[in-house]
Amino acid sequence: MLAQMDNSHTEISHSHFTRWRALPLEAVTLTDGFWAQRQQINRQVSLQHGYNMLEKAGNFQNFRIAADREAGRYQGREFMDSDVYKWLEAAAYELHLNPNDKLQAQVDQTIDLIAAAQQRNGYLNTYYQLVKPNEMWTDLDFGHELYCAGHLFQAAVAHYRATNDTTLLEIATRLADYLCSTFGPDKRLGAPGHPEIEMALVELYRVTQKQPYLDLAAFFIDQRGQGKMRGLGWLGAEYHQDRVPVRESCTVEGHAVRAMYLTAGVTDLYLETGEQALLEALRRQWKDMVARKMYITGGLGSRYEGEAFGNAYELPPDQCYCETCAAIGSIMWNWRMLQATGERRFAEVMERTLYNGFLSGLALSGQAFFYINPLLSSDNYQRQEWYEVACCPPNIMRLLASLGQYVATQDNHGLQIHLYNSATIKTELDGKRPIALTMTTEYPWQGSVKLTIQDTDDASWQLRLRVPDWSTTAAVALNGQTLNDPPIDNGYLMFNRVWRSGDEIELNFGLDPLFIEPHPRVDAVRNSLAIQRGPLVYCLEEIDCQVDLLDIQIDPTAPLQPTWEEDLLPEGIIAVEASGYVVDFDDWQDNLYRPLSGFSIKFLYVAIMAFQFVTSVSLRESPINSFAVKIALLSPGQNFSV
Amino acid sequence: MLAQMDNSHTEISHSHFTRWRALPLEAVTLTDGFWAQRQQINRQVSLQHGYNMLEKAGNFQNFRIAADREAGRYQGREFMDSDVYKWLEAAAYELHLNPNDKLQAQVDQTIDLIAAAQQRNGYLNTYYQLVKPNEMWTDLDFGHELYCAGHLFQAAVAHYRATNDTTLLEIATRLADYLCSTFGPDKRLGAPGHPEIEMALVELYRVTQKQPYLDLAAFFIDQRGQGKMRGLGWLGAEYHQDRVPVRESCTVEGHAVRAMYLTAGVTDLYLETGEQALLEALRRQWKDMVARKMYITGGLGSRYEGEAFGNAYELPPDQCYCETCAAIGSIMWNWRMLQATGERRFAEVMERTLYNGFLSGLALSGQAFFYINPLLSSDNYQRQEWYEVACCPPNIMRLLASLGQYVATQDNHGLQIHLYNSATIKTELDGKRPIALTMTTEYPWQGSVKLTIQDTDDASWQLRLRVPDWSTTAAVALNGQTLNDPPIDNGYLMFNRVWRSGDEIELNFGLDPLFIEPHPRVDAVRNSLAIQRGPLVYCLEEIDCQVDLLDIQIDPTAPLQPTWEEDLLPEGIIAVEASGYVVDFDDWQDNLYRPLSGFSIKFLYVAIMAFQFVTSVSLRESPINSFAVKIALLSPGQNFSV
Repeated sequence: MLAQMDNSHTEISHSHFTRWRALPLEAVTLTDGFWAQRQQINRQVSLQHGYNMLEKAGNFQNFRIAADREAGRYQGREFMDSDVYKWLEAAAYELHLNPNDKLQAQVDQTIDLIAAAQQRNGYLNTYYQLVKPNEMWTDLDFGHELYCAGHLFQAAVAHYRATNDTTLLEIATRLADYLCSTFGPDKRLGAPGHPEIEMALVELYRVTQKQPYLDLAAFFIDQRGQGKMRGLGWLGAEYHQDRVPVRESCTVEGHAVRAMYLTAGVTDLYLETGEQALLEALRRQWKDMVARKMYITGGLGSRYEGEAFGNAYELPPDQCYCETCAAIGSIMWNWRMLQATGERRFAEVMERTLYNGFLSGLALSGQAFFYINPLLSSDNYQRQEWYEVACCPPNIMRLLASLGQYVATQDNHGLQIHLYNSATIKTELDGKRPIALTMTTEYPWQGSVKLTIQDTDDASWQLRLRVPDWSTTAAVALNGQTLNDPPIDNGYLMFNRVWRSGDEIELNFGLDPLFIEPHPRVDAVRNSLAIQRGPLVYCLEEIDCQVDLLDIQIDPTAPLQPTWEEDLLPEGIIAVEASGYVVDFDDWQDNLYRPLSGFSIKFLYVAIMAFQFVTSVSLRESPINSFAVKIALLSPGQNFSV
Repeated sequence: MLAQMDNSHTEISHSHFTRWRALPLEAVTLTDGFWAQRQQINRQVSLQHGYNMLEKAGNFQNFRIAADREAGRYQGREFMDSDVYKWLEAAAYELHLNPNDKLQAQVDQTIDLIAAAQQRNGYLNTYYQLVKPNEMWTDLDFGHELYCAGHLFQAAVAHYRATNDTTLLEIATRLADYLCSTFGPDKRLGAPGHPEIEMALVELYRVTQKQPYLDLAAFFIDQRGQGKMRGLGWLGAEYHQDRVPVRESCTVEGHAVRAMYLTAGVTDLYLETGEQALLEALRRQWKDMVARKMYITGGLGSRYEGEAFGNAYELPPDQCYCETCAAIGSIMWNWRMLQATGERRFAEVMERTLYNGFLSGLALSGQAFFYINPLLSSDNYQRQEWYEVACCPPNIMRLLASLGQYVATQDNHGLQIHLYNSATIKTELDGKRPIALTMTTEYPWQGSVKLTIQDTDDASWQLRLRVPDWSTTAAVALNGQTLNDPPIDNGYLMFNRVWRSGDEIELNFGLDPLFIEPHPRVDAVRNSLAIQRGPLVYCLEEIDCQVDLLDIQIDPTAPLQPTWEEDLLPEGIIAVEASGYVVDFDDWQDNLYRPLSGFSIKFLYVAIMAFQFVTSVSLRESPINSFAVKIALLSPGQNFSV
């Protein structure tokens, strides 16, 4: 079975529509620094925590019951299986990076259990098997059967790429073959309410080269947009990404995670088919998202209701939803758009989201998670060890475990580096020219990055290095020689040369803290600022300020001061100090509204206050009563007395 | 049956804890002007529209099926009966004001149908009778059985007060007696998930003087706050007003309509028992609401999720919920607090909410309704002819039909006038001294009000006239003589004298348009202003401004100019013109965030723009693409070039 597998399975796409291709899974190793430490906690703590939680919540038990190995009742919501698959995907990446007997045994046991639960005909979904055996495929809108199948496929592809073991892949292809015999133009019609299977089927096609899987992905994508799906609450078909056909879509709307998973899947389809109408629709949606519906953290989804995008410019910092899975979905989509286009803008959103919108979802401990990521909270909002709807925790695990994948790409000319972190990169150009380099940096705290060529042949190849769009200056030296006018192409430093082992490039990106202003049409944060340094959007925490954060107004004419805080994070962090004022509200008494009082505002006192801005709420372990990414500007017409 | 009914049934409360008592239903007739016109549309259009919609949606049919007069299936949600009862309550008030054969026949027919649907044991709820006959009282949290019963009781009390006919009242007391035999300390425990029956039982007690009804109201109130009720979505027991016992409550929280109906019911209980702990808890909650959680329109409920109050100062203008029923509930509560305390502040909130938070729920046509009342909309948000959850439309009808009740109160000293509108008021002081007066005014467009005594005896009595808290000046003349230092007591002009028929008081309240600023802790509208003139909060509409409302910034140093717009409303309205700027956003291109660009902001042009502010979005019939109650102030540090 699967004997026809070619040996190209480690690359995400070979099609000539892929401008910049993903490297093999094993190509990048994060060796040290910011993200390596996050990966280490993921490995040492989160994966085991996840395994325990899956046991506690009943996910594994559901499989045991379906496999007739245990008696009992199905536990949890209808999509419980998907959490197991996501955990398995994360574990597969980890096993590949760092073999570990205990984890290996847990993975093998889990795969054995999944195999035992699968029906003879290939069907596999413990909820429907145990709870609604006569209702399979009757509720594509809300049933999550195809969603769970998609996560199985992604886990199987990851497991196969990581281990070359086909056990899980065979379970996946049995189910996929069953789906191919069930769904199609002349068979059962319909599309899944929650996209996910689209990108999974394309991936399954890539490792198996079985055309029906790609066709089925295209079928599900083409079925969408007939406005037939039931909505949720106040939302209509847009909740399920079913309001307009994919090729006609101009906006991101409805459930944010569904939107991101669908656009990622459509991008995957484009990468294989090269259909321009798909890429054009994706570009339109991306522009709508980034220009009108994205938080400064990269977070997505303004509304609790339907976990959905809001209107254009509807971006409240307090009641924002910003589901962790939506940030992950955005990273997945932007990563695919980067491959499709070779345009820096997608790497920028990926970086912004990774550091800010995604990472806040995870506690420093690795054992607690945000599902919703507000940018402003006044009510002691805390991470939880797990959720009834536990999509986010194992999603975080699989992204962290596979993060090396996002660092660099390659094409026929050479290598492109998009994310900076201490790492080794080893790959083969044209499938036959081995190259290797190391990257050393204290990014994101410092802007200097050193790249050293470790291995190369003696023919020329191209190295592209992303210049972050936030960098105020970018100094470059090659083998100790400063380049005064370094070649930049579309936002990437570009070096075409015959490399020698030991060649060194030193980059230095300016890291001045910046005030960032939102577009004035963003009603909710008009006249407010955020503080950013490098890729990090900073966060004001009450624990540092000792006053109600809503009472602070910033003085943007006073300089921002980066300071080293060695007590935060194992390795310390750079905080930023700013100056501002605490407003005196005593004269408001219990009024919520009053006639505009002249046109001057008094301040209780004017003093330089050392606000400590701590990057992303994830990096502080102690409970935080209140935090805010945004701060108010001084009020207009200020005429204050000292 | 009910033979023991005393003849005091037309007053809401006789208890000596009622400081200012409601007048009999027939005491006040709105004769002309703003609210009389709204009542006329309610009478001529809305009530018939409501009757038709109840037929179309299946509400009447549910009763016919339950009464075995028709075959078929129950239609709609579980609380469909309550819409019929609210419509019936509205129709009863209207029959009283303006007898009408067609409406009378519809009412009689409906009551006959309700009687036929009632079970022999008194139980009455068509949903449970038809859909879940074996599950009565098994889901007090969400089942709405007691909620529907409460609306029946209110309709019955209104019908009896209006007609002296006891038919509906007898249906109500049969159900109430059944409830008394079912619920109680030594019987079935629990409280309704949706409060409503509490105030209804107190009212039923008032007309019947049956103590068990008051005891049952107290029982349901005391049962509450054990934290046992299931929440909804992200909300816990606070959704159902079950987080803390009523006497310990310090905040308004959870579902806004439930909160208002409960506080109204608790106030009714206080009015009968005088228990100080209840009044103190009510005062604490009221302060929390008015100082931290109320929109400038009086609207309540910041969140779609759970139709709920948000955190303190969480008052977004776009995604606010502000359900019409929450505004109505607030009017009902404030009206009871006014009776309990004789304090102007409650009349102020009542007036603010009536003109702004409530009235926006109704189209000028009387045939379309808002369920949700945003203060800012950019997406062509329109009123609907009815809703699947149709609580709001008949709630609007019953409030409008009974609006005369809210105009004035009386006590042993005399009469208090709270709301101004052309009207006649006839009542008896001490139950034996007939007095009558007329009120003539073009309020709210003009601030002048003329009161003429039409009938009085020759002993002294007191007349109190509310001075609105927004009035910049208040001139008073008595029989043509200006009073330079009119006596004001707790916000009311107070006249103690022996009145003569023909005595005239002329009031003139200053009506300068005002900029209103929100408390700076209100994150969502910081540095924004609203415009108010008299009791009216004005609304900016794109149809008048021709530019995106989010692009406008106001110049608060330029004067506001009231202008007469005769084409709006049948009688014309006063609009307000303001001056401001349209901001040039061209240099933002497709950016949503950017480094703070120096500290100056350029404007595309500076010109006097004639914004027409139209009071409450209800007063314009044509579709409105976008509207906003709030406008941005000039940006800070503005340094613009003309």
